[in-house]
Amino acid sequence: MTTSIKLKHLLRIEDLSDKELMGLLTVAEEYKAKTRSFKLEKQVTACNLFFENSTRTHRSFEMAQRKLGLDVIQFDASTSSTSKGESLYDTILTMSAIGIDVCVIRHNQDEYYKQLVESPSITCSIINGGDGKGQHPTQCLLDLMTIYEEFKTFKGLKIAIVGDIRNSRVARSNAIMLKRLNAELYFCGPQQWLDPAFDEYGQRTELDKIIDQMDVVMLLRVQHERHHEETSFSKEEYHQEFGLTLERAKKMKPSAIIMHPAPVNRDVELADALVESKASRIIAQMTNGVYIRMAVLEAILAYRSNL
Amino acid sequence: MTTSIKLKHLLRIEDLSDKELMGLLTVAEEYKAKTRSFKLEKQVTACNLFFENSTRTHRSFEMAQRKLGLDVIQFDASTSSTSKGESLYDTILTMSAIGIDVCVIRHNQDEYYKQLVESPSITCSIINGGDGKGQHPTQCLLDLMTIYEEFKTFKGLKIAIVGDIRNSRVARSNAIMLKRLNAELYFCGPQQWLDPAFDEYGQRTELDKIIDQMDVVMLLRVQHERHHEETSFSKEEYHQEFGLTLERAKKMKPSAIIMHPAPVNRDVELADALVESKASRIIAQMTNGVYIRMAVLEAILAYRSNL
Amino acid sequence: MTTSIKLKHLLRIEDLSDKELMGLLTVAEEYKAKTRSFKLEKQVTACNLFFENSTRTHRSFEMAQRKLGLDVIQFDASTSSTSKGESLYDTILTMSAIGIDVCVIRHNQDEYYKQLVESPSITCSIINGGDGKGQHPTQCLLDLMTIYEEFKTFKGLKIAIVGDIRNSRVARSNAIMLKRLNAELYFCGPQQWLDPAFDEYGQRTELDKIIDQMDVVMLLRVQHERHHEETSFSKEEYHQEFGLTLERAKKMKPSAIIMHPAPVNRDVELADALVESKASRIIAQMTNGVYIRMAVLEAILAYRSNL
Repeated sequence: MTTSIKLKHLLRIEDLSDKELMGLLTVAEEYKAKTRSFKLEKQVTACNLFFENSTRTHRSFEMAQRKLGLDVIQFDASTSSTSKGESLYDTILTMSAIGIDVCVIRHNQDEYYKQLVESPSITCSIINGGDGKGQHPTQCLLDLMTIYEEFKTFKGLKIAIVGDIRNSRVARSNAIMLKRLNAELYFCGPQQWLDPAFDEYGQRTELDKIIDQMDVVMLLRVQHERHHEETSFSKEEYHQEFGLTLERAKKMKPSAIIMHPAPVNRDVELADALVESKASRIIAQMTNGVYIRMAVLEAILAYRSNL
Repeated sequence: MTTSIKLKHLLRIEDLSDKELMGLLTVAEEYKAKTRSFKLEKQVTACNLFFENSTRTHRSFEMAQRKLGLDVIQFDASTSSTSKGESLYDTILTMSAIGIDVCVIRHNQDEYYKQLVESPSITCSIINGGDGKGQHPTQCLLDLMTIYEEFKTFKGLKIAIVGDIRNSRVARSNAIMLKRLNAELYFCGPQQWLDPAFDEYGQRTELDKIIDQMDVVMLLRVQHERHHEETSFSKEEYHQEFGLTLERAKKMKPSAIIMHPAPVNRDVELADALVESKASRIIAQMTNGVYIRMAVLEAILAYRSNL
Repeated sequence: MTTSIKLKHLLRIEDLSDKELMGLLTVAEEYKAKTRSFKLEKQVTACNLFFENSTRTHRSFEMAQRKLGLDVIQFDASTSSTSKGESLYDTILTMSAIGIDVCVIRHNQDEYYKQLVESPSITCSIINGGDGKGQHPTQCLLDLMTIYEEFKTFKGLKIAIVGDIRNSRVARSNAIMLKRLNAELYFCGPQQWLDPAFDEYGQRTELDKIIDQMDVVMLLRVQHERHHEETSFSKEEYHQEFGLTLERAKKMKPSAIIMHPAPVNRDVELADALVESKASRIIAQMTNGVYIRMAVLEAILAYRSNL
């Protein structure tokens, strides 16, 4: 059994050293293979505060917490004192004061966590479940786990990230880490959604030019709820021009895999029939999400057991 | 202790054989009498997805799950990705992928479950907590349990079902099963709420003509929220013409019982004073609901332990 | 370890005898000091029904319940049958019927609990989490605990309660008990928020006249959500005229403490910098809230174990 990693918080993916990252992936794999077990030494309480809608990330964290034996205190932004105007800071101060050990937070403010972790009054650990247009580190970790599970390495893998690169928390976290892990990155999608700021991580290109060489085609969700005015194309047009159609999928290498953080817009980012196809790892990503979050939580608890 | 029944799913009440049905009633009675206990062999996780409002059914399932020691993952339709447009199918696919064993679902689409149980990707068991105008099988089971508890038989019992027969999930499930169990059924209520499709299960009549011969008077909730345009009567008029008034109740046999799936509209379906009266089994129905759902969950777990 | 207090319900703070009150404070202190532990003899289920928004009280009760090992059934007013028009009475009747042992209820109706505890059909215990403009007994208890922890007595303590005395559940409960415990009370705030009905508990005065003699300055939340038409002052004006400004705080005795039930309106009731200052007990109040609720729940369970 791998030695525990110790983490005070998990805020940004790049704060992890390579050793910590690979350690977390290994711990997660051990949980998945049922070769690792965990015994709580004392009662630990977690609270998941999602100020943006979520099914998968929220429930995946809750599942991971229950698998480790944590108590989960429910929180609903719409019926909390935040609707009386209480700030995020004061809400987390409260959670800390009543004895919550770990808060998982998704909030629309970039780097919302800074003020929290700098406060001497807030003693709970923070796991970033998504900050504004910033990061989503556990999504990145589960993506890395899914890729590593498939190829046993990151080095030299050719990976296309397709879609709204500019506004995607997933794209940013993954680009940073996959580059560091020596994968080759390609960014595809509508011109206005690509971002020169990503040129340090890989190259902008068209999916049709590279599809037959890719090991991983990672599709990003089209955030219909965020893009109203700027997109001039319909769902069908997006699919035909930028999506993974059945025709494009046929050009993929036999060993290549399809990834998507979900929820999928079927027949937009990829053809409906591809979602549960042999090449798809979309269900595996969701399953791996629970194990990687168990690994992260274990690392947080390992840190806290020394407090 | 009764041998366990095994169920993969519980979707429609008529899918149960007589043996399974009576077995479930017996197991539920044993839980109620505290002569049966249950020991979970491994961690099992349930999620209750109610896309229509509910207090009793939702909380009753949660109580049954906790009594059996299951972990319950919370789900709130209003803050889930369904509000980003995710389909029921993709939501349940997610729940299955993160390792949920049992999903209890209430949804306004008739037979919403078909697509779910036919999918090879969805591995969790489904319990139907109400589908559109279709069925509500555990409500039927708790009604049958309450009747059987009282009379130790169904054969020859005279049972009036009163109210919106046409649109009631409860009426449909109960009519099918009570007929099969050889009870005699009578359907009463406003003409436009009766349904010739029910003639195979019993006869349409007026409550006043039969009230003195009934063993069970089962009242259905007037769904004010569903009937706006079609009903031409006020609450008071409904009560006087079709409801169980104090006057009508006096004509009931001393051994007869009053049932209602609740929530009751007091002084509409029945007089306020009758709700907690000696003849009423409305509270018993709620109490029995927990035990019957424990029996159903145990049957699902018995099936799954062989997977 | 202190002998258990026994309580059937907790509805109004003045229903507690001095012995019960001091017993609860002692039990809470023992939980806080980790010199007391609790072992559930059988499964006990609690449900927290908050019909008004809350973070602190709701989550604090849930934390206390989990620390004692209770199962917590979730309840969300917005997705319950109350949105189909079900009354509070019928909702609690349901909770009792499905086997809930303890209901914690916050509701905007004064003395909502009367009808519930008088019903022979409702068998669960009720803890008042706030009734209309009435009481909030566990908030009072945690305030008393925080004061007692500091001064080891109530007798002769000079305590200013500042703000909307007339409409505050906290002010009413605290005034009754602190007077009974022989503290000296002073009520300060805008003229229209003071209340001659409180003259039996202490005297109306201006904060500036007494600030240097106070042992406790207890600030009440300005309920912006309740006061629209009547308040003619801005937040800044309130702070300058009635709030605990940094200037006023400097006049406090070195041993004096600052209290607030929270959520705080920073720079309204008190200066932002005072919230987490050395004199502030606001975080301690939140922490103590969990322990005092454990003591109350233990007392309820002690009563129920004899049923």
